[in-house]
Amino acid sequence: MGSTFHVTVPDAGWVERLADLDDVDLTVWDLESPQPERYVDIAVRPYTVAAAGLENLDPARVGLVQSQALGFDGVADVLPDGILYANAVGVHEASTAELAVALLLASQREVDRYVREAGQWNRRFTASLIDRRIMLLGHGGIGTEVEKRLDGFGAELVRVATRRREDERGVIHGTDELPTLLPTVDVVVLAVPLTDRTTGLVDDEFLSALPDGAIVVNVSRGKVADTDAIIRQAGRIRYATDVTDPEPLPADHPLWAVPGVLVSPHVGGMSSAMQPRIDAIVRNQVQRLLEGSEPDLVVVPQRIPGHEGRVSRGGDGARR
Amino acid sequence: MGSTFHVTVPDAGWVERLADLDDVDLTVWDLESPQPERYVDIAVRPYTVAAAGLENLDPARVGLVQSQALGFDGVADVLPDGILYANAVGVHEASTAELAVALLLASQREVDRYVREAGQWNRRFTASLIDRRIMLLGHGGIGTEVEKRLDGFGAELVRVATRRREDERGVIHGTDELPTLLPTVDVVVLAVPLTDRTTGLVDDEFLSALPDGAIVVNVSRGKVADTDAIIRQAGRIRYATDVTDPEPLPADHPLWAVPGVLVSPHVGGMSSAMQPRIDAIVRNQVQRLLEGSEPDLVVVPQRIPGHEGRVSRGGDGARR
Repeated sequence: MGSTFHVTVPDAGWVERLADLDDVDLTVWDLESPQPERYVDIAVRPYTVAAAGLENLDPARVGLVQSQALGFDGVADVLPDGILYANAVGVHEASTAELAVALLLASQREVDRYVREAGQWNRRFTASLIDRRIMLLGHGGIGTEVEKRLDGFGAELVRVATRRREDERGVIHGTDELPTLLPTVDVVVLAVPLTDRTTGLVDDEFLSALPDGAIVVNVSRGKVADTDAIIRQAGRIRYATDVTDPEPLPADHPLWAVPGVLVSPHVGGMSSAMQPRIDAIVRNQVQRLLEGSEPDLVVVPQRIPGHEGRVSRGGDGARR
Repeated sequence: MGSTFHVTVPDAGWVERLADLDDVDLTVWDLESPQPERYVDIAVRPYTVAAAGLENLDPARVGLVQSQALGFDGVADVLPDGILYANAVGVHEASTAELAVALLLASQREVDRYVREAGQWNRRFTASLIDRRIMLLGHGGIGTEVEKRLDGFGAELVRVATRRREDERGVIHGTDELPTLLPTVDVVVLAVPLTDRTTGLVDDEFLSALPDGAIVVNVSRGKVADTDAIIRQAGRIRYATDVTDPEPLPADHPLWAVPGVLVSPHVGGMSSAMQPRIDAIVRNQVQRLLEGSEPDLVVVPQRIPGHEGRVSRGGDGARR
C-alpha cells in the first residue's frame, strides 16, 4: 500500500465516487487539518475560490493541488515553491453561462416581480430578448457558453473581447469600441475575468451610455462593476448579478433592496453539472501522472519546466 | 371616403401605427360598443383569448375579425355565420417559448428562492439543464420555438407529439409512449393545445411517473394539468406555470403558496415581441383583401369555401 499513488479528497463522497480507481489510495483531507505524513500525489481542494490555507503546505509532501474552481486569484502569492496548482477549466463555464441566461430572462420577463407579487394576477407587458441586441462582454470560456445558449432566442449578439478580431461567426469587437456600441444594445452580459483593466469597468459612464431599460447581467466578479454606480442608476437600468462586492453581500447592504436589482449568491458553478466534470478532471490527472505525463491545467506556477521530476512520477513504476 | 377600405382597431395607438396605410380608413372600435353603421372590412379585436362579445356582431356589416391571440376556443360556437375569424399565428409563439425557458431556468436554478430570501447569502447546489433529459410535450408553434431555445443548453431533448413521426432531427415520439418516457426525463415542458385529449393530461398518474425533483413547465393551458394533483405532488416535483385553472387565479387559491410552484399571470405573449408581429399580420390582411386575395389565418369557419365572395372584395375595385 505504501507504494501506491496517493490522492486526498475533501470528503467521503469523493472516496465513494473514485473507489473504482485501481492503484490509488484515497484518503480524506481538507488541506487545513494537519498534512498527512505520507506523500500526497494529488490533493483535491474543497470547493472554494479563496487562496487562504495554501501557505502552510509542505512542498516535500504534496505534489499537485487540484482546485475545483476556475479562478485562482492570489494563489501564486501564497503557494509554497515546488507545489503545482491546477484549476478546473471546463467544470463551471456552462453552468455559469446557464445562470447568466436564467438571471437575464428572469429580470427581463419579470419573474422576480411575479415571485414578490404572488397572489396577484397582475398582467403587463415586459421586454423580451426577441429582436433585441445583446452585448456579450468577454469571449472566453463563459462568454462562448453564453453565446451558445442565446443563439436560439431571436436576438442579435454583439460580441466584445479585449482586442477586435474575427471568427467563423463574424466580428468580435474590441473593448475600445464600447463607447459607440453601448448606446446600441439592450442587454450587456459581463463575462470578463477580473483584471486591472476590468476592475470598476461598469461605472457611471458605462451605465450612462446604455439606453433606458437596459439590463446588465454579471457572472464575472463583483468588482467588475462599481456597486455605488449600479445603485445610483438602478431606476433607469436593471442589474441581475451572481457576484457582488463585497462577497458575501451583508444582509444590510443597500443593493439587496434596490428595485430592478436581482442578486443570486455566487452560485454560477454550484449546479448538478459540477460533480461529473470535476470527477473527470481528477480521474484524468490520476491517469496522466500514473502514465508519467505532465498534469493538466496547471496555472501556478505558470510554466511547468523544473517541476516535472517532482510531480509526474510513475509510468516506469517509480511512484511512491 | 365611403368607398374606402375600412379597418377598425382597438385603440388610438393602433391608428397611429397604421397611419401610413394608403386607401384605408382607420377607426377605433372595441367590438363591444355598438357596431359602426358603416361596413367593417377588418375588425381587429382587443387582445383577449375569450370568445365573449362576438355573438352580437352583425354579419351584414363586418367581414373579418382579426384576433390578436393564438387560441380561439369557443369562437366557433358564438361567432355569427358569415363572419370570418383569423387568429394570430406567429405573434406569440416565440415570446411564449421564451417565457417557458425563463420559468424553467428560474425554477431549476432557484431564482425564485433568491428573490424570496433577498438579504441572505444562502449558497447551495441546484439542478441544471446540463446533461438532463427534457421532454417537449407538443411540437407545434410553441414547442418548436422552445426546442430552438433549448438547443444550446447541453440537454437531451425528448420530443413528443400526438403521433410518432420523424423529422430531420430524429424521432418525435407519440403520446402513447408517455408511460415509458416519463420516468426517464428530468423536465417536461407542456406546449400542447387544449383539447379533449389534453384536458387533465397532467394528473396524478402522469406526475407519479416522473422521477423525484422533476420540473413541469406549463405554457399551454391551465386545464391541461389537474391543479389538485399538482398541489398534492408539489413536494416531490416542481411546477412552473404561466397558465392556471381557473384564470385569473384567485388571491386565496392554494396554488400560490405551494412550495416548489412558480406562477406567472398568463404573460407568455405579453412582451415587446408582440406589437411588430401583430401589426405585420394586420398589414398583410389589408394588403391581401385590397388585392382581392383570401384573408390569411382564418380559423373560423374552418374551411373558407363559400365565404370568399363576402370577404375578399377588392382587386377589381369593387370594394365598399
